[in-house]
Amino acid sequence: MKNIIIASTSTLHGSGYLEYILEDLEFFFKDVKEIIFIPYARPGGISHDEYTEKAKEAFSKINISVTGLHTFDNPNKAIKNAEGIFVGGGNTFVLTNQLYKNNLIDVLKKAINNGTRYIGTSAGSNICGLTIKNTNDMPIIYPPSFNALALVPFNINPHYLDPDLNSKHMGETRETRIKEFHHFNTHPVVGLREGSWLYVKDDSITLKGALTARVFEYNKQPYEVEPNTELNTLK
Amino acid sequence: MKNIIIASTSTLHGSGYLEYILEDLEFFFKDVKEIIFIPYARPGGISHDEYTEKAKEAFSKINISVTGLHTFDNPNKAIKNAEGIFVGGGNTFVLTNQLYKNNLIDVLKKAINNGTRYIGTSAGSNICGLTIKNTNDMPIIYPPSFNALALVPFNINPHYLDPDLNSKHMGETRETRIKEFHHFNTHPVVGLREGSWLYVKDDSITLKGALTARVFEYNKQPYEVEPNTELNTLK
Repeated sequence: MKNIIIASTSTLHGSGYLEYILEDLEFFFKDVKEIIFIPYARPGGISHDEYTEKAKEAFSKINISVTGLHTFDNPNKAIKNAEGIFVGGGNTFVLTNQLYKNNLIDVLKKAINNGTRYIGTSAGSNICGLTIKNTNDMPIIYPPSFNALALVPFNINPHYLDPDLNSKHMGETRETRIKEFHHFNTHPVVGLREGSWLYVKDDSITLKGALTARVFEYNKQPYEVEPNTELNTLK
Repeated sequence: MKNIIIASTSTLHGSGYLEYILEDLEFFFKDVKEIIFIPYARPGGISHDEYTEKAKEAFSKINISVTGLHTFDNPNKAIKNAEGIFVGGGNTFVLTNQLYKNNLIDVLKKAINNGTRYIGTSAGSNICGLTIKNTNDMPIIYPPSFNALALVPFNINPHYLDPDLNSKHMGETRETRIKEFHHFNTHPVVGLREGSWLYVKDDSITLKGALTARVFEYNKQPYEVEPNTELNTLK
């Protein structure tokens, strides 16, 4: 009974917050009047209130009201009762730590697996995978675990970036990093370019947006998949 | 009695492994005949043997022999008896995890604080800070802690990279990431550009190489420091 959008980013260059995906969100949330926003990832360290305002503003354009999870006395109960949930980007370690600290991992997992509509962007997408081991974020907080919500049977690398062939910088490319991951872990990784998302409906997982995605499987050459490809067989 | 080189990178674009710093290493290790190499960071997932060969080849040019720490039955004892130690780059999480797993954090700290000459590059430099929370690496392994060797009273960000003003990519810049860190942590971070290193001699910490470094202090605007500046007062 899953109904999930796992988006690479909230914002495309030169466009407003969630603007590129707003029409799809309107359709996705068509019977939903109110969603809960989880502001824990705190991009740039902004407060939960400030971040919730940003989400509120975007969703007001499609007539959905937004309440920050941090405003509930009982966040656990709030998740259980939610019509829909949005987890925004920021720092994946900060987000994951806060979810563990507030004992929300299991309740979130259960609600989403039972059909509560969920949209994640960036860090909010990282936590949909098996672990957060393919985040691009700086580990500024030590969370109790790297295990995530496991809503899909693989990991997500959001903001996937192709190697810059002109760069003289000696830091690793994204592809090198993900290949390194497969020396220590065996599950697949889906690299989602900005503007792409996965739509998960029950057992079906489909790539959406205009771009291809890059799939990394253990002991295989990485490969591209076209929009509208189903990724159900990945595991 | 410290004698430490904390280098941003092992390799400059278009130059060989350790080539840019080899003359300085010859001087640094002038009475040392043999060093121990810690290959745990495994760049690109290569084996400990392969990685040690690479270090061996570079140090043979300055007549220093290299033995991989993984070849000792008792790595703890090997560190205690080492004339010099080199920790190469790769993945900081893999490196840190392996150091904890082999109970080497304390013995390394003690040896280096007692004067065993140490050179770290990239991941090998990250572990010289208070924590590894400013690594650029992907968290492909969950280590028992992010606490590091604390050989200097701040954190290191190696391969420091200035923002690319032409980029349309929405991932965070390095500066944004380090500023985010300071919403959750208070100690300083030194961003070392490729080709820069810190030379730590007893209580003195000096920036070396041709480039400026970028210093991030809690609640201050980040600023540049010139080569040969002493960073002793940072804490």
